[in-house]
Amino acid sequence: MSDKHIAVAGATGVVGRQMLKVLEERDFPIASIKLLASERSKGVKLPFKGESLEVEVLGEDSFKGVDIALFSAGGGTSKHYAPHAARAGCVVVDNSSAWRMDPEVPLVVPEVNPDAIQDHKGIIANPNCSTIQMVVVLKPIHDAARIQRVVVSTYQAVSGAGSAALNEMDAQTRSVLDGDPPKCTIFPVPIAFNCIPQIPHQNAFESNGYSTEELKMVNETKKIIGDASIRVTATTVRVPVHTGHSESVNIETQNKLTAAEARALLEKAPGVVIKDDPEKDVFPTALDAAGNHDTWVGRIREDISHPSALDMWIVSDNLLKGAAWNAVQIAELL
Amino acid sequence: MSDKHIAVAGATGVVGRQMLKVLEERDFPIASIKLLASERSKGVKLPFKGESLEVEVLGEDSFKGVDIALFSAGGGTSKHYAPHAARAGCVVVDNSSAWRMDPEVPLVVPEVNPDAIQDHKGIIANPNCSTIQMVVVLKPIHDAARIQRVVVSTYQAVSGAGSAALNEMDAQTRSVLDGDPPKCTIFPVPIAFNCIPQIPHQNAFESNGYSTEELKMVNETKKIIGDASIRVTATTVRVPVHTGHSESVNIETQNKLTAAEARALLEKAPGVVIKDDPEKDVFPTALDAAGNHDTWVGRIREDISHPSALDMWIVSDNLLKGAAWNAVQIAELL
Repeated sequence: MSDKHIAVAGATGVVGRQMLKVLEERDFPIASIKLLASERSKGVKLPFKGESLEVEVLGEDSFKGVDIALFSAGGGTSKHYAPHAARAGCVVVDNSSAWRMDPEVPLVVPEVNPDAIQDHKGIIANPNCSTIQMVVVLKPIHDAARIQRVVVSTYQAVSGAGSAALNEMDAQTRSVLDGDPPKCTIFPVPIAFNCIPQIPHQNAFESNGYSTEELKMVNETKKIIGDASIRVTATTVRVPVHTGHSESVNIETQNKLTAAEARALLEKAPGVVIKDDPEKDVFPTALDAAGNHDTWVGRIREDISHPSALDMWIVSDNLLKGAAWNAVQIAELL
Repeated sequence: MSDKHIAVAGATGVVGRQMLKVLEERDFPIASIKLLASERSKGVKLPFKGESLEVEVLGEDSFKGVDIALFSAGGGTSKHYAPHAARAGCVVVDNSSAWRMDPEVPLVVPEVNPDAIQDHKGIIANPNCSTIQMVVVLKPIHDAARIQRVVVSTYQAVSGAGSAALNEMDAQTRSVLDGDPPKCTIFPVPIAFNCIPQIPHQNAFESNGYSTEELKMVNETKKIIGDASIRVTATTVRVPVHTGHSESVNIETQNKLTAAEARALLEKAPGVVIKDDPEKDVFPTALDAAGNHDTWVGRIREDISHPSALDMWIVSDNLLKGAAWNAVQIAELL
């Protein structure tokens, strides 16, 4: 492909910085790159391929001559600026939740539904981090045995809430170790040495008692796999981990799969790596998976409470496969 | 009741110390108290009601004249010494897993199956910490709507692995914050800023891929509630929390319960406190629940993936309701 003119909107955020890193590592064919952020970050300089690039203020006219814009700038910003970018002839890969459930917008995980990308009208949505790592594992199981229901509980890293949240966790952690009371600004209760069953950290809940993060897992899974009959319930929980989401996933299938059959399917699945020899302490953990592009699966076993269900433990880097890497994969498909 | 002669075996451990604290707080009617531990702890002094009591070495003859012995000294020790204590006329309340599934030994959670205690032959087993907090919530739901299947994922505190594990987590946490590599002695991988899907921390796994902790939840639940038809699958996970286990629990029932009906049932349930107004940041967390005797429940909602199931979040202090407090409750029943 010919070299592309790229923009990264929200370049100074946790995910934006990862996007730059991934573009660099992949040696993405770039003709030019433009870093965009809010007024607050104007003039900030970020390193890219040995140069120091200055961040420009995101505006409606920022996208003239840009081929692909990677957005990770929050839902409100995407809602406003992505249509301007699309009208300027740019293709937006958006990491916010703003466009994901729009029937006109493809929601893409390249290992699962790469063909959906072809229907784009200038905006392609990157799914929620906790959904992406789950669907790359669910897809081959669904193809082989028809998934009927999924019960998932998550163990989500604090980097998913941004860099200020990471700083808050570290500061709280030091306070607790020093015997001082932890201070809360972002989270409603301390996240240091605690688990919080609420994601996002504010205005999370719908009238049915589910959080918006949980409903993302429910609805995005159906859209990405392309089967509205897959039923999902989710409980999403923030845990005191810097990076790497873990998920305990129970999968009921129409046709029974043995653990060995599931393992054989997942061994061939793109983007999935099996780490499953628990007697030898081989299972995925967030600390090990952080920094990797793949989704790691372990603890694969037949559910003793159900005639055809599997339990497993799925771990991935929420900033990479859960965000920046999936977005760059989409850009590569383009 | 008349004052009792009490022994605490394993008095210097994390749970043993909590047992002393609970006996003190409850003003348990004590004629005498004897602290027992292994040779290693001989001569250690522990405070009790303003006195300083010296720990004696646990032996086969330690139980002469003792009415009730609270054991929290590990499975092997219980297996060996509990029968000696029982033969000496003492009633053992044992916190290890050694006797729990023995058909001759009652497995008791006082809010759930207090009557089972009457069948004891000198040994009564205290259930596994993660099971206790779950069954106090399941019991009223089972009585009202017949539980068919439970899918549970746990978020278990490090104090469940003992005081050396707590020290390891804190040391690892300081290392990570200081940019140094965390050292592992007890856990196979760092627990600081990580989640480990393996409990206990060694020799955990059975041939069906479940850990022994997971199978405790499966089997003890049936025995305590007294219904072998309740199917349970569990994924048990250690998280970087000092004290307080959290559980994400999905409960399928034969008869549908609304969230409001479940809440009404649990409001009347002994030992259960509802903390469930998530829009106002009211949900239980480990940090809040630690130090409390009750089991806290929140995030109660109807499962959108199933015609008659509930999701909820159950939190309790693993050293208190999960161990010391439940044991002292059993002693009070005696």
